[in-house]
Amino acid sequence: MELCTTVTAIRELVTAWKKAGLRIAVVPTMGYLHEGHLSLMRIARQNADRVVTTIFVNPTQFGPTEDLEKYPRDLKRDQQLCEEVGVDAIFHPVPAEMYAPDFSTWVTEGSLSQTLCGAFRPIHFRGVCTVCLKLFNITLADVAVFGRKDAQQALVIERMVRDLNIPIQIIQAPLVREADGLALSSRNKYLAAEERTRALALSRGLRAAQAKFDAGERNAQALKDAVLAELTPAADSIDYVDVMARATLRPIETVDQPALLAIAAYIGKTRLIDNLFLD
Amino acid sequence: MELCTTVTAIRELVTAWKKAGLRIAVVPTMGYLHEGHLSLMRIARQNADRVVTTIFVNPTQFGPTEDLEKYPRDLKRDQQLCEEVGVDAIFHPVPAEMYAPDFSTWVTEGSLSQTLCGAFRPIHFRGVCTVCLKLFNITLADVAVFGRKDAQQALVIERMVRDLNIPIQIIQAPLVREADGLALSSRNKYLAAEERTRALALSRGLRAAQAKFDAGERNAQALKDAVLAELTPAADSIDYVDVMARATLRPIETVDQPALLAIAAYIGKTRLIDNLFLD
Repeated sequence: MELCTTVTAIRELVTAWKKAGLRIAVVPTMGYLHEGHLSLMRIARQNADRVVTTIFVNPTQFGPTEDLEKYPRDLKRDQQLCEEVGVDAIFHPVPAEMYAPDFSTWVTEGSLSQTLCGAFRPIHFRGVCTVCLKLFNITLADVAVFGRKDAQQALVIERMVRDLNIPIQIIQAPLVREADGLALSSRNKYLAAEERTRALALSRGLRAAQAKFDAGERNAQALKDAVLAELTPAADSIDYVDVMARATLRPIETVDQPALLAIAAYIGKTRLIDNLFLD
Repeated sequence: MELCTTVTAIRELVTAWKKAGLRIAVVPTMGYLHEGHLSLMRIARQNADRVVTTIFVNPTQFGPTEDLEKYPRDLKRDQQLCEEVGVDAIFHPVPAEMYAPDFSTWVTEGSLSQTLCGAFRPIHFRGVCTVCLKLFNITLADVAVFGRKDAQQALVIERMVRDLNIPIQIIQAPLVREADGLALSSRNKYLAAEERTRALALSRGLRAAQAKFDAGERNAQALKDAVLAELTPAADSIDYVDVMARATLRPIETVDQPALLAIAAYIGKTRLIDNLFLD
């Protein structure tokens, strides 16, 4: 497995692969890898001849009050996990390799990115779109795998790819949970033991909503109420519990089309997200 | 020569070329081709195995009061000219092929695009960047050729390519003039005979500035004054006459680095631009 820290080095590698007619998959990550990331890499492995994992804590998708500085990092362990899962190369640049001092070009998605997390993190999806397009271009990837844990991100990226005719296939991979239901996230590391217990309210609320939906409930407020009954007593604050049309990420009152039930809430100082596809 | 009107059709063509290991050049145009465009295609021809010319009057780079509707079009003649110059394919989509009804992703360059024409045409370069990135992605081009007539555009596109790591080479081609000095432009068609005579003041002013520069003048205001002495009596209004550093497109007082002397002015209702590189 190769570790590349410069655009020149990874480009040399992927260009040779492309010339040999090989299909390249990229899995963009911010590192501190967990089983959710590894599941993306296994899916990438099945869909390409070569797999590149990018590990880059992208500063431009963090707001000024967010957790950029304390975001967990462990490259040694990440390298070992990538090796085990059959990744061919890691691209791990420093921020200066990605953003020139006079960097001035941004990709903005102005519709799907405006609700849910976009309403609370105003520059987040601009940073995500910009860095993902850069990573697609740097790795010359034919396919990219994104997890449904970040459902809005996956939908925004799919929209960007469609709108800009980016020659890449996007695969959405299932959300991965701990045995007790907690959605895997690098940010779970922030949770103290007592907070981790309270954090289970997110998945418990989603399961309750899923049960209601399976029993025929189509009223969005009723589904949200099922979440809130679990979440309100457990969370320190709630950014949103929303039922959105997946095509537009606008709120719907009745689930009469593919929908997303999404949560963002604070447990202590840790902002957690979780979601459910309603089909 | 192929004429493709859909993304699917041109992608099929260029994908086959790529698989055969051929190098592809793209020349993005809005059609109504003149010798300036043809010079770009000849340069493209010399730098690639296959040349695609795109002909698309891109609505998103025109402001609400600009000349989108009356912009001249003549596909038959354009096809003939492309054929003569050895173009392999024309991509000529309708706007709906490029912009879905819920299109929502934009590329913005926030520095070089803010001065000169960007100050007078606020959405122009957003439209240019977005459509050029789309055209690069659609044609899978290895190289793109832009004329220096639109000097700011070429510099903005180069910045976009750098910032977003777009795997394409940008070639800047020389500005082409009529024998009497008028810079070639599709918009010259708008000029009545009397206006065309007055329009010569742009190139005459630049020649006067060039003569001063060649004689050692490095004061930006003195160079601008040389232009204005010709332009002020001839133009109906002047958007700008500016001396800018080419690296930043910010004004400089002394030409002590690669610079751009650029003009935008109205002759009648026609907005004309012209420029000079000062090296």
